[in-house]
Amino acid sequence: MKLSHIEHIGIAVKNLNEAIAYYEKVLGLKCYAIEEVADQKVKTAFFMIGQTKIELLEPTDSESAVGKFIEKRGEGIHHIAYAVDNLSSALEELGEKSIQLIDKQPRKGAEGLNIAFLHPKSTGSVLTELCEKPDKNN
Amino acid sequence: MKLSHIEHIGIAVKNLNEAIAYYEKVLGLKCYAIEEVADQKVKTAFFMIGQTKIELLEPTDSESAVGKFIEKRGEGIHHIAYAVDNLSSALEELGEKSIQLIDKQPRKGAEGLNIAFLHPKSTGSVLTELCEKPDKNN
Repeated sequence: MKLSHIEHIGIAVKNLNEAIAYYEKVLGLKCYAIEEVADQKVKTAFFMIGQTKIELLEPTDSESAVGKFIEKRGEGIHHIAYAVDNLSSALEELGEKSIQLIDKQPRKGAEGLNIAFLHPKSTGSVLTELCEKPDKNN
Repeated sequence: MKLSHIEHIGIAVKNLNEAIAYYEKVLGLKCYAIEEVADQKVKTAFFMIGQTKIELLEPTDSESAVGKFIEKRGEGIHHIAYAVDNLSSALEELGEKSIQLIDKQPRKGAEGLNIAFLHPKSTGSVLTELCEKPDKNN
């Protein structure tokens, strides 16, 4: 498995607009996209910094994974996503290493990426996502 | 203030050697340095991925900030560090914007960087560090 860079860092927020204001006005980053990911019951806002995106996540349903995260732990860093060349082969390799997979097969994430999550139980309590550009392996 | 990239992501771990084994054998990254930062009462291990480092943090004292973090929240992502061109001027700007600073002046961090932490109360509960290369602004 070859990880090339940190694709994004997911940050759970209660109020997307207030969080966007902080990242723009205080940190000087520019929000370039807002997207609702119905599947994950979140509204997301994206900022680019170097090779990496900051992905703010506001739950649209308190029963969603991000909603429960905020209820339990409060706002804060939610997950880290690595860019990988070949997601299917990475998942196969991780399965062979007995890493617990939340997604055994790639699925569609924000921005059209193919994604899969690894379970924090296998990753030192870091919710970990792998992302592959959809034009790869076609 | 101009942030150029994510300098590192700090991850709190209970056992540095076990965590290094995961990042090397499972994620395929290479630990290039281990350093004790006496000031912060942590042992750190570094991995490079693209522009960004993963910084594993094992507390050497349960009363340290990282030790208390693990006691309260368990292992996991501890902080995010942005690279900044001019740290002193960034801190001045943040002060003017009423951002609560843990470090009002730059201090020395791991790898000889000049660093300062912002308080999570002002940053959407994300412990945020700014880092400046020491050869800047000489």
